[in-house]
Amino acid sequence: MTTQPIDINTALDGFDAIWSPRIITNVNDYDIRIAKVKGDHVWHVHESTDEFFLVLDGELDIALREPDGERVVTLRKDSVFVVPRGTFHKPSSHAGAHIMVVEPIGTLSVGDRHEEVPSYVDVTTGHRV
Amino acid sequence: MTTQPIDINTALDGFDAIWSPRIITNVNDYDIRIAKVKGDHVWHVHESTDEFFLVLDGELDIALREPDGERVVTLRKDSVFVVPRGTFHKPSSHAGAHIMVVEPIGTLSVGDRHEEVPSYVDVTTGHRV
Repeated sequence: MTTQPIDINTALDGFDAIWSPRIITNVNDYDIRIAKVKGDHVWHVHESTDEFFLVLDGELDIALREPDGERVVTLRKDSVFVVPRGTFHKPSSHAGAHIMVVEPIGTLSVGDRHEEVPSYVDVTTGHRV
Repeated sequence: MTTQPIDINTALDGFDAIWSPRIITNVNDYDIRIAKVKGDHVWHVHESTDEFFLVLDGELDIALREPDGERVVTLRKDSVFVVPRGTFHKPSSHAGAHIMVVEPIGTLSVGDRHEEVPSYVDVTTGHRV
């Protein structure tokens, strides 16, 4: 845990990789992660944890497979959303976005089950900034 | 947990009370809270949890009582900071700020131990938006 405040924009300037979350700090056993995203992530599910999203810049779509069918929620800048545990979802961003994610330390960016991962999507529990 | 994205600015428009956090959503057993702050909060400590701060707008000072003495960290817009569990701290904002806080459900806004609470500071585990 850092002893000084961290500027999110400076941290974002420090990497270019998409779908490759950076851990900027921790609160208890949770990661605060930031990521640059563009195009499609993969369908995946976290069986044992919710996943919190905050859009810092741009626009993020999250497709969700729910009991009643599939739907897409669109998060604009300064919007938040929580994907409940057990819900298959696929984030995507046509024009690109910067996001913050809150989830337990060790949570895999592609979930516990997922479709085939294209080469541009990192399989990670988060990189340290 | 809401099933639609929440716009933080709309949520902020919904209340005026300072030092009176609103719970906008939950991730597992954690609250995502937003608050309007201005002037001084009270010195307090959370014995068993860290506390994550993100400044959405304005500037937030957090005074900290550490083993080596007292210091103040200043968080500008888009900065984050985590107050470690067990550290007495006092947030304040001369000109006012909007902040997001992440901490376990039930965490008291004035901590487990605190100085006398002035009337403008709410003693709360967060209000629902």
